[in-house]
Amino acid sequence: MRIFPVTGLPEIREGDDLAALVIERATLEDGDVLVVAQKAVSKAEGRVVRLDDIEPSSRALELAGDDEDPRRTEVILREAVEIVRIRPPLLIVETQHGFICASAGVDASNAPEPGTLVLLPLDPDASAARIRDRVRELTGARVGVIVSDSFGRPWRQGTTDVALGAAGIRVMEDLRGTRDRIGYELKSTQIAIADELAGAAQLVMGKADGNPVAVVRGLDVAGEDTAKELVMPADRDLFR
Amino acid sequence: MRIFPVTGLPEIREGDDLAALVIERATLEDGDVLVVAQKAVSKAEGRVVRLDDIEPSSRALELAGDDEDPRRTEVILREAVEIVRIRPPLLIVETQHGFICASAGVDASNAPEPGTLVLLPLDPDASAARIRDRVRELTGARVGVIVSDSFGRPWRQGTTDVALGAAGIRVMEDLRGTRDRIGYELKSTQIAIADELAGAAQLVMGKADGNPVAVVRGLDVAGEDTAKELVMPADRDLFR
Repeated sequence: MRIFPVTGLPEIREGDDLAALVIERATLEDGDVLVVAQKAVSKAEGRVVRLDDIEPSSRALELAGDDEDPRRTEVILREAVEIVRIRPPLLIVETQHGFICASAGVDASNAPEPGTLVLLPLDPDASAARIRDRVRELTGARVGVIVSDSFGRPWRQGTTDVALGAAGIRVMEDLRGTRDRIGYELKSTQIAIADELAGAAQLVMGKADGNPVAVVRGLDVAGEDTAKELVMPADRDLFR
Repeated sequence: MRIFPVTGLPEIREGDDLAALVIERATLEDGDVLVVAQKAVSKAEGRVVRLDDIEPSSRALELAGDDEDPRRTEVILREAVEIVRIRPPLLIVETQHGFICASAGVDASNAPEPGTLVLLPLDPDASAARIRDRVRELTGARVGVIVSDSFGRPWRQGTTDVALGAAGIRVMEDLRGTRDRIGYELKSTQIAIADELAGAAQLVMGKADGNPVAVVRGLDVAGEDTAKELVMPADRDLFR
């Protein structure tokens, strides 16, 4: 397996054709997986708000306290369907997609300009499918696409990248029912390979450097899953 | 970045010299990161128990219910310092290392033989350091080593591999204080690169296939951290 960043991409703006920008800078092959940072996808899709356009609610003013811009808190509350944990000004929420993450994925870093915030794509699986289809249209290559973002995790320090959206790949390696070398049945082993791919790609993307796209080559993960399948149903979740 | 499995390793037994077994099958270079599945490390270190030697306590009998071997539950309870969640027979516990994981990492799959269970290494950072030192001694190569295992996560389906132990690498990329392209300070961005490396290596190892070692090449992550630093201190944790 080889993973390399797609270098030299310009700052992404609303309406940009990400697939076209990538294929001008990298030759893609059948079976490649293109991992695209959520930030780039969101910017291309215009999922950006200006703080100056936001009127904070009283709830946002209360939660923001003295260290946080209440307009940012307001944006987070609007993106959330449920607040999971609060340690002001940190908000961990469930988004309309079912993701549980800090700040509903709302972020000012790598935003188009100061005073703007980038939101998560409305439907990251659809975003991934559009990029996959467009690569196919432009080059004929059948690639997989992952839309990735950095999420914190309970119990462990630091973030790892996970797959918010996916197209053209399997997201889970399901080993239930297979047997190991001594014949023991692997009862509950489902591996979230799309999340592992997102994390692997992050290693070559950097964060401040701004290489928002990487290519994973040499791994057979072609399939038809979506990243929605990686979201744990609430009724199975022990940690809400 | 390239990642490849070390193929052709024999079934690992107590007392085996993992570093020697690896270097007979792969030429390691300075800067390589060797990712070794916990199962292989534990077996080499003799961290294996026989179910026939275990007398289940009344607590284990109660928690095991009808679907689980109470001797296995007893082993899990002995490896746990605290029970975090119970959905019988599933136990999510904190181990003496501070890891929060299902079954205290106790596992029958890929065990040396039927009727045995493999436990986590007593000190996975020390295990990693021993392998790193031994590779250096045998070949002169300065490599990093990660001891990895598959952990479930709240809110998301499937497991991803994480770093239980580390030597010779940085485990976290600390971007706090660096600036992105528009000058926005990345305030809270710490990336758990050791966990992302563990997950990336898992992609080429397989699980039932039994390639318990992979090599990551071409990434500059040399350092002197331990994986203990990836364990979130209890007082900062919102999800205990």
